[in-house]
Amino acid sequence: MKRSFIREILEHTTNDTISFAGGLPDEKLFPYLDLRESAYHVLGDTKSLQYSTTQGYLPLRNKIAHLYTEEGFKTTAEEIMITSGAQQALDIISRYHHHEGITIEAPSYLGAMNLFDLNHLVQEAVALHNDGIDTEAFDKSFARTKLAYLIPDFQNPTGYTYTQEKRKSIAESIKKHGGILIEDAPYSELYFKEKNQSISMHIPKQSFHLGSFSKVLAPSLRLGWIRADKRLLEPIIAYKEAMDLHSNGLSQYILDHYFTELHRYKSHTKLLRKMYGKKMQVFKNYLDELLPEFTYSIPQGGMFIYGKLPGIDSAILLKSCLENGVLFVPGSEFYREGEGKNEIRFNFTNASSKEVYRGLKIIAEVYKEMIEEIKDAA
Amino acid sequence: MKRSFIREILEHTTNDTISFAGGLPDEKLFPYLDLRESAYHVLGDTKSLQYSTTQGYLPLRNKIAHLYTEEGFKTTAEEIMITSGAQQALDIISRYHHHEGITIEAPSYLGAMNLFDLNHLVQEAVALHNDGIDTEAFDKSFARTKLAYLIPDFQNPTGYTYTQEKRKSIAESIKKHGGILIEDAPYSELYFKEKNQSISMHIPKQSFHLGSFSKVLAPSLRLGWIRADKRLLEPIIAYKEAMDLHSNGLSQYILDHYFTELHRYKSHTKLLRKMYGKKMQVFKNYLDELLPEFTYSIPQGGMFIYGKLPGIDSAILLKSCLENGVLFVPGSEFYREGEGKNEIRFNFTNASSKEVYRGLKIIAEVYKEMIEEIKDAA
Repeated sequence: MKRSFIREILEHTTNDTISFAGGLPDEKLFPYLDLRESAYHVLGDTKSLQYSTTQGYLPLRNKIAHLYTEEGFKTTAEEIMITSGAQQALDIISRYHHHEGITIEAPSYLGAMNLFDLNHLVQEAVALHNDGIDTEAFDKSFARTKLAYLIPDFQNPTGYTYTQEKRKSIAESIKKHGGILIEDAPYSELYFKEKNQSISMHIPKQSFHLGSFSKVLAPSLRLGWIRADKRLLEPIIAYKEAMDLHSNGLSQYILDHYFTELHRYKSHTKLLRKMYGKKMQVFKNYLDELLPEFTYSIPQGGMFIYGKLPGIDSAILLKSCLENGVLFVPGSEFYREGEGKNEIRFNFTNASSKEVYRGLKIIAEVYKEMIEEIKDAA
Repeated sequence: MKRSFIREILEHTTNDTISFAGGLPDEKLFPYLDLRESAYHVLGDTKSLQYSTTQGYLPLRNKIAHLYTEEGFKTTAEEIMITSGAQQALDIISRYHHHEGITIEAPSYLGAMNLFDLNHLVQEAVALHNDGIDTEAFDKSFARTKLAYLIPDFQNPTGYTYTQEKRKSIAESIKKHGGILIEDAPYSELYFKEKNQSISMHIPKQSFHLGSFSKVLAPSLRLGWIRADKRLLEPIIAYKEAMDLHSNGLSQYILDHYFTELHRYKSHTKLLRKMYGKKMQVFKNYLDELLPEFTYSIPQGGMFIYGKLPGIDSAILLKSCLENGVLFVPGSEFYREGEGKNEIRFNFTNASSKEVYRGLKIIAEVYKEMIEEIKDAA
C-alpha cells in the first residue's frame, strides 16, 4: 500500500523547513493550559485509567450530542460513537461497507482514498466545483454506488464549500436512491462567517456524520466521533471493539472535563476562527503579491487554499522547492488518476506570517526559474 | 460480527456486581499520581498536542527498545512501532497477512479470534496443555499456515505458561518451515517467580512480539507496541497510517516522561507482581475452600485461573450466577467449536478479597443447586 505523501514528507522535514503541506493546526493556539488543568483533575483518581466501553465514555457522548441538538440537529448519546480520530471512523465505516462502491469528490482527501482502496471499495470520482460537487453527476453515480464520501465544509484539499442548494440536492438524491452518506466534517467549526448546515441533518437515518477534535482542540488526543442512527451504529461498534477495544480513555476523560465548562470551548473555537481568518488573509495577501499567477477561490473557512499555477507540473516544482526548504502538496496527490498536475494545496494555519512570506517568495522564485527554463527549451 | 461476550457483559454490570470476568487490572494499583505528574509536565507546552509520526514517538520507542536490549533481546527504535493497544497491533498484522491461514491455541484469546475472522484468516486450533501447545500438532499445522498466534506467558484464558523446551521447539518449527510468529505478551511482566524468555528472541526476523502497557500501567492509555524486524514492520506502518494516522500522542508523551525515571517503572511492576501474586493466592485459597470440585493448574503469573467444574454447562451456571450478581467467563467462549462446556475462566486481579469470598460462595451455592437439580431430574 502507498503511504501518504504528506506524512512521509512530514517525517523528513527539519525544524528549518517551511511547510505549507500538512493539515496542521497552529500549535500556538492549542488550549494546553486548560487541557493540563483537566488532565490534572481527572488523574486525581484512578477512574480515568481503567478499561472503558467501546462506544465511548457516556458523559462525553452526552456532551457531543448536546452540541448537535443545540444547533438544531437532534441527537442523543446513543447516536454518538467515539473513535480514534475521524480517520478511524472512516476506516470502521468503509471496512463494514466494503461490499459496495463509493462516490467521492475529485479531488478528495488522500487518507480517505487510501482507506477505500484498503477496504476494496471501488471509487467513483465526481468533479468538485467551488460551490460543491457536480450534483447531476453525483446523482448518476450514487444511483449505482449507494454510498458517498463528501466533505461539504472547507473541503480537503480545495477549501471549497457546498451551497445550501447543493446540500439539499445531494440529500434529495440520497433519499431517492436509498443508501448512505459519509459526511466528513473535521473543519466545520472553522468557519470565518457562519456555520453551514450539514447534509446529514436532512437525512439523519441515512448518514454517518464524522466529527473530530483534532482541528479544533488538539490532534494528539486522537479523538473523533461518528453521529449516526442507532441502526447504522450498532454493527460498526462490533468492528470497533475488534479493532482496538475502545479509544483512549484518558483523553476522553480529559475532554469530558474540559467540556464541563462549555463557554471555555466556545470562546476557544471563536478565537480559532478569528485567528485562522487572519492567517488566511495574510496568506492570501502574500500570494497575490508574490505569486500573482496562482488562481484560486477564497476559502470561507478551514485550513487550505487551493488553486492553479499555470505552465508547470507542481510535483516537479515541489522537488525544487523542497531543496530550498519549502513544502506544499501537489494537486495530483488528491486525484485517482493523477489529474491536477498544475494544482497546489497550501495550508495556511500552521506557518507564521514571516514563514509565509519567506516560503512564498522562494516558491515564486523557483517557479519563475522553471517557467524560464521551459521557455528556453522551447 | 459477534461482539465479545465479556465486553457486552461488562457494559451491563452495575457497581454491585462481583466480576471475575474481564481481564481488568486492579485500579487501586494504577500509578495515577506518577502519571499525573508526567501529564502535568508534558502539558507544560504544546509539543505533546500536535500530530505525530505513524510509527510512534521516537524517544518512547527508544525506551521500549532499551528494555528489550537490557533483557538480552537486542532491539532498536526502528524495530518498534507504537499501536493503540496490543489489540490494534493484532488487527494491523492480521489485516496485512489476511491471505494466509493461522495456527492458534485452543482455547485462545477471544478478541484475537474475532479479529482473525474479520480479516478472513482461516484458523487452525491446536490443543494447549499446561506446559504449552502440543508441539507435534503445532508443527503439522504451521507447515500449512506459515503463520501462528501464541500467548506463551500466562496465557489468556488458561494462565498456562510454555516451558523453555516447548518454546525452543516452536522456534525450530518456525525456522524449519519459514513463516511468521505473532507472539502476544501482554502479561509477560506479571510473573510471580521469574521472567520467561520470549520465543521471538530465537527467531527475531520471523516474529512480531506484541507488548502492552494496559496490564502493567493503565488500559485507558491504549498503548501497546510491536517489536519486529524492520522488513516486517515497514509494510504495516502504511496500514497503521491508513487506519488512524498514529496512536494517541499525549499518552505517548506522558509515558515517555514516566519512563525517564526507569526505577519508577521497575518498582511499580515489582509491586504489581507481588500484589497479584498475593491476590492469586487469596483466590486459590477460597477456591479450594469453597469450590473444591474445581480443578485447575496454579498459574505462574498473569491474571487468570482456569479450570474445570464437572457435571454442568458453565454457560448455564453463569446465567444463574449473573442473577445473583456474580460474573465469570464460561470456557466455551474461548474455543472455535464451542468446546470447554464445563470450563471456567476466573480473573483474580480485579476483585477484592471480600468480593472473592462472597463471589465464590455464591457460585458454589448455585453450582450445588444445579448439580442437585440434575440429580433429581435423572
